[in-house]
Parts: sequence; C-alpha cells; structure tokens
Amino acid sequence: MDHKLILHEYTQSGNCYKIRLTAALLGLPLERREYDIMKGATRTPDFLNNVNANGRIPVLQIGERLLPESNAACFYLADGSHLIPTHRFDRADMLHWMFFEQYNHEPNVATLRFWLAFVGEDNLSEAQRSQIAAKRAAGEAALKLMEEHLSSRDWFVGGSLTLADIALYAYTHVAEDGGFDLKQYPNVATWLGRVAAQPNYIPIA
Amino acid sequence: MDHKLILHEYTQSGNCYKIRLTAALLGLPLERREYDIMKGATRTPDFLNNVNANGRIPVLQIGERLLPESNAACFYLADGSHLIPTHRFDRADMLHWMFFEQYNHEPNVATLRFWLAFVGEDNLSEAQRSQIAAKRAAGEAALKLMEEHLSSRDWFVGGSLTLADIALYAYTHVAEDGGFDLKQYPNVATWLGRVAAQPNYIPIA
Repeated sequence: MDHKLILHEYTQSGNCYKIRLTAALLGLPLERREYDIMKGATRTPDFLNNVNANGRIPVLQIGERLLPESNAACFYLADGSHLIPTHRFDRADMLHWMFFEQYNHEPNVATLRFWLAFVGEDNLSEAQRSQIAAKRAAGEAALKLMEEHLSSRDWFVGGSLTLADIALYAYTHVAEDGGFDLKQYPNVATWLGRVAAQPNYIPIA
Repeated sequence: MDHKLILHEYTQSGNCYKIRLTAALLGLPLERREYDIMKGATRTPDFLNNVNANGRIPVLQIGERLLPESNAACFYLADGSHLIPTHRFDRADMLHWMFFEQYNHEPNVATLRFWLAFVGEDNLSEAQRSQIAAKRAAGEAALKLMEEHLSSRDWFVGGSLTLADIALYAYTHVAEDGGFDLKQYPNVATWLGRVAAQPNYIPIA
C-alpha cells in the first residue's frame, strides 16, 4: 500500500470491524481514530466537513483521500488479493452477498443490536419500538437465507473466504446481542467458527 | 458475453432498470422475463426455489447461473468496461456510491415512490404510514448529499459516467413519483440530463 491508512471508526461497530478484519487478514497496518457515536461525534460540523458529509463511520482514509461505506473500504483494501475472486461471475456474486448484507441483514440484525444492547430498549423512541417486530422478522429471514446457502458449501462464494464472508461475519457473530438465537442456525454457527479460525483473524474488541 | 443473459424483472422497478440501462450503454442484448410484484409473483414457491430464495427481483441470469442484487448485476455486465474505473481508489469510490444508493437512497426515495405511486397511500399499513416522515427526511438528506457532491463535478466518480451514476440515476430520475421535488436540487437535475444524453440511453419504460 503506497499511502498511510487511517480508519475513522467506532470500535464496537461491525461495519468498522469488517475493515479491521480485512486489513488484518491481508497484513496491512491501519491507524485508528475513534469517534463516540453515542455522543454524536460523527455529526459535528468538523466531522461533516472534513471526514464524511453523510455523518457516518467507518471512513477509510488513504493518504489524503476519504472513502466511506464499509464494504467499499474492504474492496479497496482487498483489490487484487485472494479475498476477491478472479473469476468474473464469482466477483459479482461476492458483491451480491455484500449488497444483501447492507440491504437485508445490517438494517435488521445490526440495528436491533444497536437498539437493544447499546441504546437500551427503554430509551427507544415510539417509532423505533414500533419497528422491532418487523426488523426481528427480516433479520431472521436474512439468517435463514444464509443458513440455507451454507447447507451445501463452506464459504459464501467459491471455495475459500472472500469479502462476502467478512461482510456477513461482522454483525452475524454478534447477532445474539440483538436477541437473535444462533443455535437455530447451525450451518451459520459452523461457518462463524471457520472464519474465526483463519490465520491472522482478530476479534471485534 | 459468452452466455445468454436473461433479466428476471418488473419493468417499473428502478433496480431492474439499472441493469437494462447498463446493458444498453454497453450494447449487450438482454432477454426479459416480467414478474408482477403487485400480485406476489416473486414470492411463489417456483420463484423462491428456481430464481431467488430472497423473493426479489431483479435477478440476472447468465447461462444457468443466477445473480441477485441490482448493483452486483450491473458490476457483472460492466466488468472490464469503461463503466468501471481502472484506478483502484476510483473503483472503490464507485462502490461507495453504489452502497450509499442501496443503504441511504433506495430504502427512502424508492420506497416512498412504491408506497405512494404504486401501492397508494390509502392502502398502506399503519406501520408503513408511520415511517413516511422519517423516509421523507432521509430521502431529502440523500438528495442533498448528491446535490453537494455534484456542485463541483459532472459525474459521481472521476471524469465520466460510471456505474455509480447509473445506480443513483435509476430512482432519482423518478423521485417525483414519491413526492420529492427535484427543483430543489438543481445540480442533480442537470446531472440527470447529462445521463439521459448518453449515447444508447434508454428510458425506464
């Protein structure tokens, strides 16, 4: 890597952890800058003007350039490595699972973890509380889809770990924080162990 | 392209249109199979077993293989073409905007269009109705971010149209169906015209 890499992050965020795990598996050094999202540290004028106008972490800084969106940052780090398939269909199929993660999995599995384990159910707004049941059902549907996909294969795409596994691992392995029962998904549980057994694996915190 | 391409779709869906537009700009022939999502045609056992276990369109079929997720399908079609930047940072930055589209834009701008112009406000559930205000605000925030980004550039990434523009164009150009006022976003409006002026451009329907 030609440029210094700085991760603007909140350690407990699975989206930030994805990037740290990708960097660790590739042996890339990453400097870390922590923002307390519970105190609004990513909504300050300084953050909005100088880090991300979208007010979100993670942002991967590459030299002077800033790259928001966790899965895009993982792609940048892994571009040209064994974590991205060289076969055209498999490369797109990896992105399929990464978009599934951000559309069907994260807004449900990660949001319930955030609401229940970080914000606390008593502190939720009425609007948030009214969405819990729908997010629970959608999160279970995402986990069920993963369970079925893993019934006949060890990894989400092809014959080895790719960014699809890293993206889906990040919030799945802490899904119980959001009230999901991983014992209902034995193939997923086995796959989680497979990811954690990778050389140079690092835990979320 | 070595294999026959079949798009499993619903014409009015912006996510399906993205794939048709990408194929048109690249001169790739696409066979089309229509499913009436208003009648549950993507939730039948046949569709779930044979097209997409996630019960959603679009799905791009490449020979015998099936690829869900609109932005992954666009990436497959455009892989190696001028619609994906060759520079490593720009390629990841294109994905940044495509993930932004699926996380911050589509669930708000596209969902309000679907609810208000297709389902009809009178037919929405209480839970849906209670989310309209939040989705309106989040959709406006996404359009504002695009407006600011386009204040100093013609395209989302680099100096020419990429998949980032195609992904964001799909639901932005019909955002008024969902009650968004594009006159408030003049840079966005100019950029929409720029996309529509591309050689081989096709309209949504």
